[in-house]
Amino acid sequence: MIKEKTEVAIIGAGPAGYVAALRGAQFRKKVILIEEDKVGGTCTNYGCIPTKYLLHETQILKEAKENSRLKGSESLRLDWFEVQKTRQTIVDRLVKGIEFLLTKNGVKLIKGRARLIDQRHIEIVGDQEERVIEAERIILATGSRSADLPFLKADGAKIITSREALEMATLPASLIIIGAGAIGLELGSIFARAGTKVTILEILERPLPGTDRQLAERLGRLLRLQGIDIQTEMKVERAEIFQDKVRLSGTCLKTDKPFQIEAEKVLLAAGRRPNSEIVREIDSSLCDFSGFVKVNEYFETAWPGVYAIGDLIGGKLLAHKAMHEGLLAIENAFGGSHSLESRMIPMAVFTDPELASVGLTEDEAEEMGIRVKVGLFPLKASGRALAIGKSEGLVKILADEKNNLVGAHILSPAASEMIGEIALALRLRLKVEEIGRTIHVHPTLSEALSEASLKAINQALHILND
Amino acid sequence: MIKEKTEVAIIGAGPAGYVAALRGAQFRKKVILIEEDKVGGTCTNYGCIPTKYLLHETQILKEAKENSRLKGSESLRLDWFEVQKTRQTIVDRLVKGIEFLLTKNGVKLIKGRARLIDQRHIEIVGDQEERVIEAERIILATGSRSADLPFLKADGAKIITSREALEMATLPASLIIIGAGAIGLELGSIFARAGTKVTILEILERPLPGTDRQLAERLGRLLRLQGIDIQTEMKVERAEIFQDKVRLSGTCLKTDKPFQIEAEKVLLAAGRRPNSEIVREIDSSLCDFSGFVKVNEYFETAWPGVYAIGDLIGGKLLAHKAMHEGLLAIENAFGGSHSLESRMIPMAVFTDPELASVGLTEDEAEEMGIRVKVGLFPLKASGRALAIGKSEGLVKILADEKNNLVGAHILSPAASEMIGEIALALRLRLKVEEIGRTIHVHPTLSEALSEASLKAINQALHILND
Repeated sequence: MIKEKTEVAIIGAGPAGYVAALRGAQFRKKVILIEEDKVGGTCTNYGCIPTKYLLHETQILKEAKENSRLKGSESLRLDWFEVQKTRQTIVDRLVKGIEFLLTKNGVKLIKGRARLIDQRHIEIVGDQEERVIEAERIILATGSRSADLPFLKADGAKIITSREALEMATLPASLIIIGAGAIGLELGSIFARAGTKVTILEILERPLPGTDRQLAERLGRLLRLQGIDIQTEMKVERAEIFQDKVRLSGTCLKTDKPFQIEAEKVLLAAGRRPNSEIVREIDSSLCDFSGFVKVNEYFETAWPGVYAIGDLIGGKLLAHKAMHEGLLAIENAFGGSHSLESRMIPMAVFTDPELASVGLTEDEAEEMGIRVKVGLFPLKASGRALAIGKSEGLVKILADEKNNLVGAHILSPAASEMIGEIALALRLRLKVEEIGRTIHVHPTLSEALSEASLKAINQALHILND
Repeated sequence: MIKEKTEVAIIGAGPAGYVAALRGAQFRKKVILIEEDKVGGTCTNYGCIPTKYLLHETQILKEAKENSRLKGSESLRLDWFEVQKTRQTIVDRLVKGIEFLLTKNGVKLIKGRARLIDQRHIEIVGDQEERVIEAERIILATGSRSADLPFLKADGAKIITSREALEMATLPASLIIIGAGAIGLELGSIFARAGTKVTILEILERPLPGTDRQLAERLGRLLRLQGIDIQTEMKVERAEIFQDKVRLSGTCLKTDKPFQIEAEKVLLAAGRRPNSEIVREIDSSLCDFSGFVKVNEYFETAWPGVYAIGDLIGGKLLAHKAMHEGLLAIENAFGGSHSLESRMIPMAVFTDPELASVGLTEDEAEEMGIRVKVGLFPLKASGRALAIGKSEGLVKILADEKNNLVGAHILSPAASEMIGEIALALRLRLKVEEIGRTIHVHPTLSEALSEASLKAINQALHILND
């Protein structure tokens, strides 16, 4: 058995863990990073990256097919085998890139399965000789996985998770997606564009619960126009699996009537659960009732010196949240005291148009007793949006009574790129005038950020004020 | 003859003029706006908007054709007649939108040609009865037009300007563009993608003179790979116009050898000149040696109460600069004292990838004696860029010795949307850490803003630091 000492051991080399490791190494700390699968985690290998790749490929097909000025697009089709090969090439390249960064920064990467012995010791089981690591600090970053339903477990064939969906060698003729969250809408978009008949069943009353109501509902309508059958208030209660199809039955909560629907495959996208077994098998009191590891505002668990970050601790299950927590936790592990306000974390859904958001929604502000001024700018008043034939979106900027920016919600192409400006403004606690007065290039979609900010204070130019 | 009094008369309803008019009306001023052609000016009717539309249409064709996973793209072609019809529809809609805003805000729009009588009086000649307007304040916003060459004047047929290029009913087999500035590269991209053989002749040593050298040169290489024959240091000296072609001759300044090149049409894109006749015909001392109207830092001409804005006063000939000057000038006309720092004005070239920029370049900083730290992040280290197959770009952030942001140069898809964040940061005089610490959505191209900012201070994560 190999015994090894380190200043910090990090379990899990997804976005949270590998970023913590890189920063730790930049601080000249001795860092061991343990990963049982591939570095990059779900995001790089089975999540964000392959999703964005497939969204991009299918978007090209969609744009070409729906453009009436472009002739000869009837026979266009994606060679799905080639698409999947390219997906793997891109993923492999990114994984190699992360491995390169880890090596060059001096992080020691150990492949194997980690088990916590106590608050300072980790046992690693792998192909190689057994190891015990003694670490001054431990950071847990083991991520999450798709949640099964009580009556419906993923089998990788007929009942799949996002991971299998992204790697499918052939396209199914029909697909039911359970859950109209970000993953459901993105994967639904991919398969619908590629030609699969997609139905999304959502138990709540609208897609993207928790995001801006108006924008989410509009996005739902736009996706329906793109051929995705999004059905809300649909409670799935039973599944029958046949040779060639799956049949789901349940109750429509709107009408209280039963429904039955069949498809070749069913994709589970109704939430994720934490990979917290590593903690629970020795002390389940470290986790909350959903299994997420509990941490204080500095990402430290109930065990001093043991930190947890990323999907494992819940909140917004987003790669950039995980990365940022990685930075903060490693700094905190060595004397820092950084915390992260949840409302500073932007989010984006990479549909067409994209939906991106940061700060409070109107509903959240109301719950907190904050009266907000709403600056709404419709993209039909944007020159760029009209020029690119994408004028269905909306940009909404929220200000409090003193005109301080409190949130932004963007339904627009490139929303995921534009939200950075608002995240910066929110972090700096700016007034909306500051965005309004900043010169944005004409003609761009980002001008709408300016206009919506000015609209909140009745100074918009390209739409009427109140 | 109609006589009319107003608080402010604005001549020219392009971006500078119509924005000044809208803001003036919002201040409850009596505003008369005079336009001899269409509201929206060159930008809306014959410039930015139709260019961005044609870039978008041809980009879809380009993306479809160059994607090897997409089968059946050989026979794709744009129906140029339909494209041109759609271009006009979009332009008309935007023009109507501006007219609507002007009317609803209470701006009086007069169609006709304006002539300055003196510092308070304007004569308008048009289809209707002759008018004289007496205005407490006058704002001149008559814009600019393509510059001819001494030996080569636009004839609208064989020798064209951007305006005719954007409205061509059929695609020429070959096109020579004189000038590799923003207009030359954008129009070159449109026609090359649509199938025209495009040659761009630039007299200086690189495309986009004045922008970041490294990025401009890389963009030049990328555009050459897209089939645009960009030739630099080519001085055109003679033109021969034939029935079916134009022949240009000149000297290659690199080799000092003569050259000769032929094409169906020649597009003049080597600079623009101000429409300053309105001023020059009564007092040419108001203009500089290039014909641009001279103003003080508050946009006031040598005539008190008479302001000039937009392309007419030179500087960066950009619509958003013109709009912003419109806002400032109308405020200054009624007691304000706002000026505009040229380095706060972002710019973008809408090629593939886009190039966007704000603040100082390295060359400019060096001239000013500012030592800069350069944070360079190559998009080949960006997950989003790899996922969308566009990893050739670079993001460069410049900081001074105290880590204050001094400039940013972005070669990337959506650069024009991302530059807003930097324009905001620059206006607020932020340190680069502030961008670096802002959470950007993963995976997006805007993460590169963060990484390049951190790289400038040796804290980058996804590339190695020095």
